Amino acid sequence: MEGRDYVDKPVERQNNHDEENGSPPPGKSSVDWLLSGDSRHELVELADMRRNDDYLPVPGEEKSPDGHFDSGKPSSEPQKLPCETIKLNPLGRGDSIGPYFTDGQRRVDYVLAYDIIKPDAVHHKSSCFADNCITRRILSLRSSPADLQLQEDPEVAAQQQQSSYHHDDKRFCRTEFEEKLLEMGLELEKDEESKIQGIGFLKIHAPWNILCREAEFLKLKMPTKKVYEVKQGNNIVENIRLFIRKVTAPLHPKVDSNRPQSVKPLSHPFSREKQHLFDLSDRDSLFGSKTRSFIVYEVLKRTKCTRTKYREGITSLLGSGVYTAAYPMHDGDIEGVQTETNDRKLLFEEWASYSVFYKYQPISLIKKYFGETVGLYFAWLGVYTQMLIPAAIVGVIVFLYGCVTVDDDIPSMEICDPRNNITMCPMCDRACSYWKLSSACGTARASHLFDNPATVFFSIFMALWAVLFMEHWKRRQMRLNYIWDLTGFEEEEDYFRTDYELRVIQKTLRKEHKNPKNEKVKLTCTDRMPAYLSMFVMMAFMITVTFAIVFGVILYRITIRAMLHVSSYPAARSNIRATVKTTAAIINLIGIIILDEIYAAIARWLTKLEVPKTEKSFEDRLIFKTFILKFVNAFTPIVYLAFFRGRLVGRPGSYLYVIGSYRMEECAHAGCLMELCIQLCITMLGKQLIQNNLFEIGIPKLKKLLRRRKSEMDSEQEQEHNKTLQRYEKDHLLGPFVGLAPEYMEMIIQFGMVTLFVASFPLAPLFALLNNIIEIRLDAKKFVMELRRPVAVRAKDIGIWYNLLRGLSKVAVIVNAFVISFTSDFIPRLVYQYMYSPDGSMHGFVNHTLSYFNTSDFQTGTAPLQPMNLGYRVEICRYKDYREHPGTSSPYEFTKEFWAILAARLAFVIVFQNVVMLMSDFIDWLIPDIPKDISLQIHKEKILMLELFMKEEQDKWCTAGDNHNSEKCTPSPSLKHSPVMTASRRDPYTPTANC
Amino acid sequence: MEGRDYVDKPVERQNNHDEENGSPPPGKSSVDWLLSGDSRHELVELADMRRNDDYLPVPGEEKSPDGHFDSGKPSSEPQKLPCETIKLNPLGRGDSIGPYFTDGQRRVDYVLAYDIIKPDAVHHKSSCFADNCITRRILSLRSSPADLQLQEDPEVAAQQQQSSYHHDDKRFCRTEFEEKLLEMGLELEKDEESKIQGIGFLKIHAPWNILCREAEFLKLKMPTKKVYEVKQGNNIVENIRLFIRKVTAPLHPKVDSNRPQSVKPLSHPFSREKQHLFDLSDRDSLFGSKTRSFIVYEVLKRTKCTRTKYREGITSLLGSGVYTAAYPMHDGDIEGVQTETNDRKLLFEEWASYSVFYKYQPISLIKKYFGETVGLYFAWLGVYTQMLIPAAIVGVIVFLYGCVTVDDDIPSMEICDPRNNITMCPMCDRACSYWKLSSACGTARASHLFDNPATVFFSIFMALWAVLFMEHWKRRQMRLNYIWDLTGFEEEEDYFRTDYELRVIQKTLRKEHKNPKNEKVKLTCTDRMPAYLSMFVMMAFMITVTFAIVFGVILYRITIRAMLHVSSYPAARSNIRATVKTTAAIINLIGIIILDEIYAAIARWLTKLEVPKTEKSFEDRLIFKTFILKFVNAFTPIVYLAFFRGRLVGRPGSYLYVIGSYRMEECAHAGCLMELCIQLCITMLGKQLIQNNLFEIGIPKLKKLLRRRKSEMDSEQEQEHNKTLQRYEKDHLLGPFVGLAPEYMEMIIQFGMVTLFVASFPLAPLFALLNNIIEIRLDAKKFVMELRRPVAVRAKDIGIWYNLLRGLSKVAVIVNAFVISFTSDFIPRLVYQYMYSPDGSMHGFVNHTLSYFNTSDFQTGTAPLQPMNLGYRVEICRYKDYREHPGTSSPYEFTKEFWAILAARLAFVIVFQNVVMLMSDFIDWLIPDIPKDISLQIHKEKILMLELFMKEEQDKWCTAGDNHNSEKCTPSPSLKHSPVMTASRRDPYTPTANC
Repeated sequence: MEGRDYVDKPVERQNNHDEENGSPPPGKSSVDWLLSGDSRHELVELADMRRNDDYLPVPGEEKSPDGHFDSGKPSSEPQKLPCETIKLNPLGRGDSIGPYFTDGQRRVDYVLAYDIIKPDAVHHKSSCFADNCITRRILSLRSSPADLQLQEDPEVAAQQQQSSYHHDDKRFCRTEFEEKLLEMGLELEKDEESKIQGIGFLKIHAPWNILCREAEFLKLKMPTKKVYEVKQGNNIVENIRLFIRKVTAPLHPKVDSNRPQSVKPLSHPFSREKQHLFDLSDRDSLFGSKTRSFIVYEVLKRTKCTRTKYREGITSLLGSGVYTAAYPMHDGDIEGVQTETNDRKLLFEEWASYSVFYKYQPISLIKKYFGETVGLYFAWLGVYTQMLIPAAIVGVIVFLYGCVTVDDDIPSMEICDPRNNITMCPMCDRACSYWKLSSACGTARASHLFDNPATVFFSIFMALWAVLFMEHWKRRQMRLNYIWDLTGFEEEEDYFRTDYELRVIQKTLRKEHKNPKNEKVKLTCTDRMPAYLSMFVMMAFMITVTFAIVFGVILYRITIRAMLHVSSYPAARSNIRATVKTTAAIINLIGIIILDEIYAAIARWLTKLEVPKTEKSFEDRLIFKTFILKFVNAFTPIVYLAFFRGRLVGRPGSYLYVIGSYRMEECAHAGCLMELCIQLCITMLGKQLIQNNLFEIGIPKLKKLLRRRKSEMDSEQEQEHNKTLQRYEKDHLLGPFVGLAPEYMEMIIQFGMVTLFVASFPLAPLFALLNNIIEIRLDAKKFVMELRRPVAVRAKDIGIWYNLLRGLSKVAVIVNAFVISFTSDFIPRLVYQYMYSPDGSMHGFVNHTLSYFNTSDFQTGTAPLQPMNLGYRVEICRYKDYREHPGTSSPYEFTKEFWAILAARLAFVIVFQNVVMLMSDFIDWLIPDIPKDISLQIHKEKILMLELFMKEEQDKWCTAGDNHNSEKCTPSPSLKHSPVMTASRRDPYTPTANC
Repeated sequence: MEGRDYVDKPVERQNNHDEENGSPPPGKSSVDWLLSGDSRHELVELADMRRNDDYLPVPGEEKSPDGHFDSGKPSSEPQKLPCETIKLNPLGRGDSIGPYFTDGQRRVDYVLAYDIIKPDAVHHKSSCFADNCITRRILSLRSSPADLQLQEDPEVAAQQQQSSYHHDDKRFCRTEFEEKLLEMGLELEKDEESKIQGIGFLKIHAPWNILCREAEFLKLKMPTKKVYEVKQGNNIVENIRLFIRKVTAPLHPKVDSNRPQSVKPLSHPFSREKQHLFDLSDRDSLFGSKTRSFIVYEVLKRTKCTRTKYREGITSLLGSGVYTAAYPMHDGDIEGVQTETNDRKLLFEEWASYSVFYKYQPISLIKKYFGETVGLYFAWLGVYTQMLIPAAIVGVIVFLYGCVTVDDDIPSMEICDPRNNITMCPMCDRACSYWKLSSACGTARASHLFDNPATVFFSIFMALWAVLFMEHWKRRQMRLNYIWDLTGFEEEEDYFRTDYELRVIQKTLRKEHKNPKNEKVKLTCTDRMPAYLSMFVMMAFMITVTFAIVFGVILYRITIRAMLHVSSYPAARSNIRATVKTTAAIINLIGIIILDEIYAAIARWLTKLEVPKTEKSFEDRLIFKTFILKFVNAFTPIVYLAFFRGRLVGRPGSYLYVIGSYRMEECAHAGCLMELCIQLCITMLGKQLIQNNLFEIGIPKLKKLLRRRKSEMDSEQEQEHNKTLQRYEKDHLLGPFVGLAPEYMEMIIQFGMVTLFVASFPLAPLFALLNNIIEIRLDAKKFVMELRRPVAVRAKDIGIWYNLLRGLSKVAVIVNAFVISFTSDFIPRLVYQYMYSPDGSMHGFVNHTLSYFNTSDFQTGTAPLQPMNLGYRVEICRYKDYREHPGTSSPYEFTKEFWAILAARLAFVIVFQNVVMLMSDFIDWLIPDIPKDISLQIHKEKILMLELFMKEEQDKWCTAGDNHNSEKCTPSPSLKHSPVMTASRRDPYTPTANC
């Protein structure tokens, strides 16, 4: 019925696109009456300007509150808008402090900030009045295309460029944008006299009808009046659940929204046509501050500033510095005694505090305050931390098992036993000499801590743990989706990025000469080819740098070790191994941390060069690059230690040399696992301590301190001054929200540490657990206190991060298989025990792993300088390998044992990989992605919804048929024709639901 | 506005469930006026019966066609239903033949069939009049619980039980159900005098308003009036696409709906409130026959027959035999000259015919006629067949490469060269004797056809092919989802199965004694435990049977071979190998085909025992079991041949014996690949030929022949009789549609054959391709001609089958890795060439693979009876293995070469598996799941939809503000206040869109 104008407007059926460029019908602007403050005179000037008439202004406050039309024409009635603006209840909070307009009634839902200059500076420059301000921008861009590369984050970029473009351009852009916003129905208030010098603020309020309209467009699911009972499972299950709930009660935060409700309102996408379904009695709480700011942001994104096709919304304006910041406001203050309770304060007390570290997080409240993406991040972090608890416990048990059994380990007993009297070949050329195997006793015993059968069990355990974690998260995510009413929500396409738009405009301008047809231009692969090429080159270069650093550390280790061997201090010599290992690991760590920061910047720069189309694509590409670089950076030294060290050594008499005379490193007799473990331990602990404490706590503190020192004299005054600031001014002083990617990235790398090489370091989950307990509260503090409130973004899942996690846990299986079979001594021991041991025990294993070397076979110049240091002449020395005896027909060739053990190792890899993969897939298949109670409730909701609609349908028929086919309606006839009932059915409706 | 009654009906907010059991308000039934035919007298009797008043009858024909209310009360107007029944245009097809009610106007959308008996038989049995007919059913069930197991498919079951329950029970169930349907607004017509004896038909018609209502509930996406241009990519891409289209024009079926359209209407879930968006001018075509039957079926499913809680809809009634069949009607006749064109005929001509085998399928038409699931099946089959073309070509090339290079293959040349004069150890104990290796020349040359380096390439190719196929299908599915307007559609939960409901009722009755509280009862694990146990036992037993049969065939082979060796016919002896292999493979094949049928029945029976809750769960469980059984059945002999044969042999002098004195089979010298190939070839060809031709073509033909012979005298009359049959009577004679599972299953097993062992049989894709070309048309014929029309079921994907395909293609990687490294000679050759060959060539390879055996080491009683058959005394014979020479210190132990080759084989498996998996994941990541043009168009649609709504919003404001805030509306003022324009904007609307 509303579509009647299709009949006499056949042009409607064509594409609507070109309407924007068509000549608009004349009409006096009627928007200025809504503007308050001193910006009114500007808009009056604009009243005769060309305007885009696509979106009409919304009549705001002047309708009668009951919204009734008393026209006699019945057919015009259906067009009556169900939602009309009414006056919001004056809440008596009209004082200047508080998130309201100066009238103390309209809530500020969003704030835009911009630089202002004195009005006199404007007038002599206003040459592009009523002109397209973007054209200027493009022209200036064309003259300096290198500017593009200077752009940082939109806001940072804005600050950088603030001096390079004319202020009046920006002012007119702003004026036009504000006009458009008014046309969209938003209400604005300006504050250019703020206490922060040089910054003007535009406060935006979304009236009720705009909220209704946008909620309908965005298909926001809202709770309806219909509630239903939530019942999980049968009585026994329910009782167990309640019992667990009671026991864990002290662990739950004291937040209302976190309690399980026994009833849940049925949710339905908001629709004004169906608004009788929704409980509209309390309008303030129906759209919370998060939802309001989200809605305003959607409008801001959509509102086009100029007639230029490619300029879209607030993101462009931020990118080009027209506005310097855009943020919703925090709910209130945290500190201060008389502050009333607000969600932010509640979050501060019950979540962003180290004193509640043992508690669950109030996820619902986080989501309510920060939106779904942030809520999902903390929910994910919580699930991950929770899942680390069993892993850490099992890891500690495995470690303790190693400690307890260290005295029963026959191979290390044999190594430590001086009666075995095994003479080993020298560890380096010339400088080193022969040594007794029993001197490696300590290392052998230490190795057993990390290289015992329990480790194999632990690897399998952790592989399955990773799968269980993923499954658990999937279910949790599904549950949150259900609770947060996101089922059925489809992720929306993003708007184009500013950079992309600018590039497209540039290309269009270039093409206009050759190609006068106004075809739609877009960036093709050829346009992006240079960026792709430089990306590949840079990525390859960066990875090479990482490799080079690792190689440098190797050379350092080799050199230092040889030097220390030569040194005559016995104390130095006895601690050689430990010293070298630890210093090398620390050098590696420092390299990793420094490169991490550099790589993050480079990845961002490379992604910018690519000019991705949308914000989402930008994010994905950036994450992908950062992940590769950081991952390579963090894991190269570890991979080297695990798989390459000690393998490319050669054998006595024919060692492998790199760069002239550097002989490659060997492992200790008990394998490289010990060194791998040290490296992992230092990397993990160091990274976490330094990055968390130094970067996330220390540096902000330091900055604050410096700032305070600069204005030390008036620190008292400053506090006083701060108190008088408006809410939006206070928020402006906080740091901008830059997305969750860095937080996720840190955790993903940690997840890699925990799963990838867990076979060599069972304590990794424990370290991760301890770190995360701090990390949660640290991040919470940052979000609550130090950052501007982020715009709520709807999301059903954690996106690309889930795929990265999944990929890591897949790679972990194969890496662990290789660590167990190649880095540890597990397989050789097993093979010895079952194939070669004379009595089925491990006795003789050490001897079995050592080959013989005839000292007369040394290459010239490599024999030790002090051959007699052990006190006797050495003719045969031993080295760790499976090679033929010098006396056989093929001396120093691999023995049959070598091949048999190799086959066993490889077979183990195949079996391990496939068994674990099969078990993972089985678990994946066994555990349904949607928890059963949730799927039951979703089903129930659908049935209830159907019933509701059927009921409504029935009522509709009856009411429609009141006049002439009433006999078809079955509700008892006594009710039906009574005029009293009809009235009573109609009257209560009018005042409550008509807005 | 429609929801005003919430105010004085607060009870609405509670759960609606118990309303059904509450006492219904009194009210005279008003439904009988709609019934035509001779069933009216029955409903009159029912008029005073208790009724479920949830759904009200729909006023049908009596409203004035323009649907205007001239009431003076404006506030009652909004409740006016936008859709009202109007008279359908009389099409002049009121003759008795045709899918219309006897009035020739209302289309028959659905047909229910039931058994009828003479009226006089009813009267003396009508004891449960107005009683709950299901209670009787339960009571009778309790006395004979074994009945449950007898149930087959609902329809079959219905036929079986038709004599066991009272006809009057069924009749009253029907009466009640029909009454409910009338209340739901459907229109019914009975035909109990049909030409098919003993069958009554209930024809159902859904009037326009019901269609509208249900379309809204089901959120059916309908094309709106707004169309937009579909443009794929830029000009070049578009031109290429057009060119390809032109070139392949003869391959496209001559069907309108298959042509690419340049414009596409914007789709939106149907909503009566937004009906001005939709093009309602041609009501007949808006809801096609498929959609109409789908809607009716949804209503039938939802309509509850009795007051018993668990009895839901038509599925229950079919299950309990109240109705014997339920089906929508076919569109028209296929044969006959004067038949007008209909979709069925078009499908028959352009799709279900062997003469168009080379053409694409008219997928859109298939979907339009049969619904989304059937459309998806054929689309999938089409994609699979299409993808088989490159695989078949490459396979043939690989095979030809083998043929061409057979003469250059050094190992087979060495085997064939009689100068090498290698004496082999006997193939069996006592009966066999020594033999010359050169006598195996033929086998060696044949083996080369399937065992050459190209095979390795082909395995990798096929693994990637499988991934590409999956990706291609995902994209195709996405495209179809877009074209079919399924984006955003969520799969709905199924209704409960009859068996489950019955079991729950049984349990409730049992529990009532102990537990008087009326708690909701459901089947728990304990209830299902016996079923699960018997499932595991039966599955294990079945798999054991399969293994036993394969083992039996092995024994057969061993015995026959020994016997043939003894036989003195030289002809027999020369063909020994070929004979044994072929007969064994055929025996296996017959076993497989017989067991296949048995297993299908057993799987169904086992699934029934489990009593799954919903149809979907039943289907999934059944598919899973059937898949496991059929898979094990088809692949056990192949797996044995590939991985076990020739491995558990032992060595001369110490052979491995099973069951007393059966020595395990050896492979030919060139490996078992040849035999694997023969087995695969026979299984594949045989299965396809026999199952396709015999079961799918032969047996139906035979049945028809038998039927015709039985009534041979009146075959002429029968044809005449058939012509006079009504459409629904003709359709009733066709077979019921039993789902797509058997079709999919056949294809999945074939996919397994194509991918799993493709390394051994490169011609498999070719065979599959040839089979599928026939299969498509065969299935098409079945669907168009021999089956009743299935109810359209919406589906976005092929569900569980995709997971099975994915699983198979994963398993294929590892299986192929093992086939190449262990079954073929690829790795030993490579190792020989690079490690042991003196000159880097393959010369000497045969000698290298053969070990030496001293004939004096034979166990007593196993030495050949005729040691001199070669004409000389043999002291050293050779056998294929890597074992030490009898003269060394450890005779007959594995050599170093054995272990080295084993390590190489295992390493190859790891490398192959991980490289292929990595490549697969890479391809998966590289190819976006959603084709770019589709995602662009979806994006465009969203924007257009937003614009449309914004426009509408604007219009709404303007119209609503006509009276008092008109100055806010910008459409030029000259238009706005003119009363003429207002009228012209209103009038054209009323007659067109008001229904």
